[in-house]
This record gives sequence, structure tokens and C-alpha cells, in this order.
Amino acid sequence: MNHATVKNDYFWMAKAIQLAQKGRFTTSPNPRVGCVIVDENNQLLGQGYHVQAGTPHAEVHALRQASNARSNGAKGATAYVTLEPCSHFGRTPPCANALIEAQVARVVVAMTDPNPNVCGNGINMLQAAGIEVVSDVMAAEAAALNPGFTKRMLTGKPFVRVKLGISLDGKIALQNGVSQWITGPEARRDVQRYRAQSCAVLTGSGTVAADNPSLLVREQEAKFENYPLEHIRQPARIVVDSQSKLNRDFNVFSDGHVTFTATLQAHPDTSVGHYIQVDEKDGKVDLHGLMSALGDKQYNEVWVEAGPGLAGALLQEGLVDELICYQAPKLLGDKGVSMVNLPAFTALNQSISLSLIENRQVGNDIKLIFRPDVSNTCR
Amino acid sequence: MNHATVKNDYFWMAKAIQLAQKGRFTTSPNPRVGCVIVDENNQLLGQGYHVQAGTPHAEVHALRQASNARSNGAKGATAYVTLEPCSHFGRTPPCANALIEAQVARVVVAMTDPNPNVCGNGINMLQAAGIEVVSDVMAAEAAALNPGFTKRMLTGKPFVRVKLGISLDGKIALQNGVSQWITGPEARRDVQRYRAQSCAVLTGSGTVAADNPSLLVREQEAKFENYPLEHIRQPARIVVDSQSKLNRDFNVFSDGHVTFTATLQAHPDTSVGHYIQVDEKDGKVDLHGLMSALGDKQYNEVWVEAGPGLAGALLQEGLVDELICYQAPKLLGDKGVSMVNLPAFTALNQSISLSLIENRQVGNDIKLIFRPDVSNTCR
Repeated sequence: MNHATVKNDYFWMAKAIQLAQKGRFTTSPNPRVGCVIVDENNQLLGQGYHVQAGTPHAEVHALRQASNARSNGAKGATAYVTLEPCSHFGRTPPCANALIEAQVARVVVAMTDPNPNVCGNGINMLQAAGIEVVSDVMAAEAAALNPGFTKRMLTGKPFVRVKLGISLDGKIALQNGVSQWITGPEARRDVQRYRAQSCAVLTGSGTVAADNPSLLVREQEAKFENYPLEHIRQPARIVVDSQSKLNRDFNVFSDGHVTFTATLQAHPDTSVGHYIQVDEKDGKVDLHGLMSALGDKQYNEVWVEAGPGLAGALLQEGLVDELICYQAPKLLGDKGVSMVNLPAFTALNQSISLSLIENRQVGNDIKLIFRPDVSNTCR
Repeated sequence: MNHATVKNDYFWMAKAIQLAQKGRFTTSPNPRVGCVIVDENNQLLGQGYHVQAGTPHAEVHALRQASNARSNGAKGATAYVTLEPCSHFGRTPPCANALIEAQVARVVVAMTDPNPNVCGNGINMLQAAGIEVVSDVMAAEAAALNPGFTKRMLTGKPFVRVKLGISLDGKIALQNGVSQWITGPEARRDVQRYRAQSCAVLTGSGTVAADNPSLLVREQEAKFENYPLEHIRQPARIVVDSQSKLNRDFNVFSDGHVTFTATLQAHPDTSVGHYIQVDEKDGKVDLHGLMSALGDKQYNEVWVEAGPGLAGALLQEGLVDELICYQAPKLLGDKGVSMVNLPAFTALNQSISLSLIENRQVGNDIKLIFRPDVSNTCR
């Protein structure tokens, strides 16, 4: 491939990735996918992105635009797709077929299908039809569109983000429990966006009992740009309540939106409402089992807003993919509530080790994104 | 003034500030000062910076270079000085006189003398001699050269930096006291430079008893670029030990370098060695009184490496100018030792409020510099 072709491929794939991002709040359980179709003279013929499960895939939108743009549609054109075109009949026909029928000359794919059972099938179909296929163009950027979908396809479990709003000295509340608001409005707005893009928000019974939060997306606070508020999908709430002790008067149970109680009990009182029964570990819900159950529900991304007990347990079990801290420039002092409960370590190499992957200012607070190191679970 | 003159003034003053910075580790109790002399054609004639108290000031070095550069020396030239030239005879003759004698045509001053009793005298002398004077060119940058000198001239107290090496969850040690090393080698090297530029390192008796630190500059670790190691000035150590209970075997007392015990006792046992007697407040050393005493000793910058008790007390008393945290990507858990002890606050507006002024990566850690908000001491 010559230099100009490579340069064009990156240019158009970047465009396709931008399109895919428009599905951030809506595509689940499907992945976010974008598609661009470009003619022989490097001019845009069509573009599209996947909006919602059950509606057309990105390729279909882009091919329709190309058909409207000229009489021979996408024939001889190049299609850029952020994810390998599907090869199977789901709720919509396979996109590989649609590209073949449109007689595109070339397909550029950012990343192959993460599902090991499907991976490569779409590309094989295209190649069998004589279409030139190039893959792994901006693969890392495309993977970042769908951390949850990718992880779930590979492991059966969702991508888990633990959020903590902390002071400089790592406290989430004063001794008396007061915690509103340690962080500023900009940080809280950022949280709304994570809630909106997540399939489920996970919390513990202690947090529900102490704060009675709704954990829903506060639409006015989120201020989604160019986004119709009526399309906001409220995440399911998951409350870890091993002994099903919480009463039904708390907001999460009484506000009419979906909440599941994660509990040990096989036949809880029907008044508990929706529940997920999970195996027991040390007298509590086994968190690995819980995550598998959430994967079975096709939840791609799970957002955790929990107290120090559940946050610490998830970190210790190696179940956290990203730890997101909003750190306020405040000192609450030694008597405040620490952000994570962990065992009494006796050596520093027992501590939870993290890698910082993002550090930026959000209002007066800083937002720090960490990935827990793999070594934590090898101890 | 035309645009080209203004532009030249900023260019040469930036150069003078760079020169002044070379005195970072040596000028105390004097300020860091740089000087540049430029001829009528905007060409450099001479430059210099103040190295050490008792040796020539920056202006003298620059004037000497100008004399060597051409027969009429600095006559008709412009002098750029980062601090108003001195007007009094100290250990060296006044620099204002030297500039007048050299017949410079113009003097550009970054900041006036911070000492209210001296401020403006040097400029007045120059103007009385018919020299054009421009002041407040890059004043903020020049002030940043000498936070300690400036504060001491204005208040009689030193500029106080509190350093803490913490985990993400705000812990400075495990429950068993283990703390070496939470932060990485790059952060520890940065600390060495602060020790070297400070007049004194302040700590508490608890830290000495627990860690037996030297608190000296570890020269090999500091890796000062282009800096002769034999010129490193070791800071005095100040140990707050209200009841003079520490024995003399600890490193700070036995390594041959200067250490003062800050104590309540009027006539401590002579075995205590150097001491500073401070008035009592709530059974302990009054920290305001201690800082005044350190100002009396002509200490410009004090670097605090202390435990949660002393660090918290200094913050509460409004005695901290900068809080410098090296935050490691680790979680030590709720049982670790919190970074600052503060009272049991009952509302968030009682917490210590800070402003973040720097956030950067230092190795695997982040370095955060905060200024405590003035509101903390107005409660």
C-alpha cells in the first residue's frame, strides 16, 4: 500500500470512530460501531452509526446514503468499519452480505470481532467474495469504543468501573457520614455521563441505607450535547444485599425503575422484587459469580458507586477494570471515612498497585483513571 | 514605549530570571537575583547572578563583564535586574550606586524590594541620578524566585512548604508504621532538591523516634545538574519536641550537622544541644512563635517533613504556604496511617480547603502542589 492510501485509511477510520461514539448512550447490549463509505476519488459517499439494538447496523445506514448519492451506490468504493462486519443473522441480516451485494471494492476494518466464535467470519465472507480487506487500522482506538462489549465477549463478564469521589486525604465522608458534596458540579456531571453509558450501576446495601440514592441519570445535570433527552437509557441498579435486609421504601426500590437485589437467598420473599441469586463466599455474595450473572444479562459496562467495603472487595477480587477517582482539593482529616477497606497489610508490596492512565482537571477537582495492576491478583 | 522595546524588556528579563535561578541552593539568607546588561544595539554586554551572602551582588558581576567587554563599559546601556537594586551599605556597597557610577541610561526592574522599609529607595536613587527606571516587568516570575525572602521581609516568618508522600487513599504508612517507600525514586529525588534549597527542615519528635531520619540532602540522590556538590548547603534541622524527651542518639542529633530542638523549656539540660525556646500553647510549642523564631534566624524557606500531627497542626494554624504531595498509585487501605490529623469535623465547610497550583507526573507518582485557602483561618 502506498503512503497516500495509508494516510487516507487513518483519516476515514478516525471519522468512523467519531461516528461510532454517537452511540455511546444507546447501543447496548450491542457494540458502538461507525461506518464511512468513500468513492474512488477519496470523496465521502455515505456514513452511519449503530443507534440501538434491533435497528440497522452502521454499514446499512452508510450504504443507504451511498445509494442515494449516486446511481451505482457503493460499487467500487471503500468501506471503513470500526468493527468487523457481522456474518450472522441476528435481529438484522448480516452486514458482510450487504457490503458484498453493494459490490464495494475494499473494506477497511479497525478491529476483528472480539467473540472468539465469530472472529474472522465476516472478513472471510468478504474475501471469499473477492473484496480486498485490510484490518487492524486504529484497532486500539476502536477497542476503546467498546470495552464492555469486548470484555463480555471474551470473558462473559462486564467491564467494571469503580467511581470514588474523594478528598486529597482519601476520605469519602466525614466521621458523621456527611459527604455531600466533596467534589464539585463538574465532576458530578461527568458521573452522570458514565451512569448514562453504563448498563448497570452497582452499589451496596450500606450505601442505600446511608444515602438513599437514586443512582439514575439526572438528565438536567448531565447536559448531554446534541442528545435527545428522551433517548437517555436509565441504567439498571444492582444492590448487593446478601441477606436481603433492606426494606422496599428506599428510592432504588420504589421509584419505578429497574433494580435487582444481589442476594444469597434462593427463594426470597416476593416483596424483594427483582433479584439475582448468587452463590455464597465467606457469608456474602460471591462477587465473581455476581459479575458472571451480570454478563449473562448482557450488561457490557457496570458502574460502581459503593462504599469502602464493596469497593475494597471488588479491588481485592481483581474485578475492577478501571478505578475512577474525582479528587477534591480538600482535607477531611484522619477521622473521616477512608475510600477503600482492605486487610491490615504488613508490607507495602501487599498494597493494591495501580497504573495511572488519565489525569485531568475537572472543575476544581482532578479526575484520575487507574487500571489495577494484574499483579494484585497474583498474590 | 514602543512595541520592540517592550518585547526586548521581556526577553532580557527572562534571561535575568534564568540567571537568578542558579542561586537556588546558595544565596540564603539573601534573595536570588539575576542581572543582564544590554548595549544600545540590544546586544548582551554582561550578566551575573548572586551566589552567596557576603559575595558580590548580581549587578556587580554584570557590570564587571560590561567593563571588560568595551572601553566605556555599561555607559548608556540598559540594566535588567530581577529585584530592585539595593540602596544601603550591607556587607557589600549599594548596587544602585554602582549602576549610577557606571552611567547606565536605563534600569528595568522586575520587582521592588519586598522590605517595606527599603522599598523604592533604590529606584529613587537611580531616578535622582537621571536614570530612566521601568519596574514591574515580569514581577510575578521574579517574586517566584524568592517566596521565602519576600515573605520574611513582609511578615518576619519563613515560607513554609509541607511535603507528604502519600498513597491514592491518603495514607503515609501501613498500620505497623512501614512507609519505605510509598513513592518512587523520582519523587524522592525531587525532595532532595527542596531540602537543598531550604534553610531548614522541620519535623516532629514522633517522626524522629519512629524513622530516625537524617533529613540531610543525599547528594548522590539529588543529582544536581551542573552544580558542584561541595557547594551544597545542608539545611538546619528543627525538631519540635515540646518536652525535650528525645534522647541524643538519633541521627539528627549525632551526625555533626546543625539541629535545633524547639522546646517549651527555658533551661533545658545542656545535653539537648542547640535549642529554640518557644512559648506554650495547649501544652505544646506555639507554632506561630516557632515560625517567628525561625524568621529571626533569617530562614527564608522551611521544608516540613513531619507526621500527621504536626502537618495537621500547621495547616490548622494557617502556617502552611504550600502543601506538596507526591501521590503514589497505590491503595494502602483504611487501616493505614492518614496523612493529616484534624479535629472531628461535623460539616464539610469545616474541612481544610486548598487550591491546586501544580499537577504533574514525577516518575510513576503525581506531584500536586496546593496553596491552602485563606478562608481556612477565618473560621
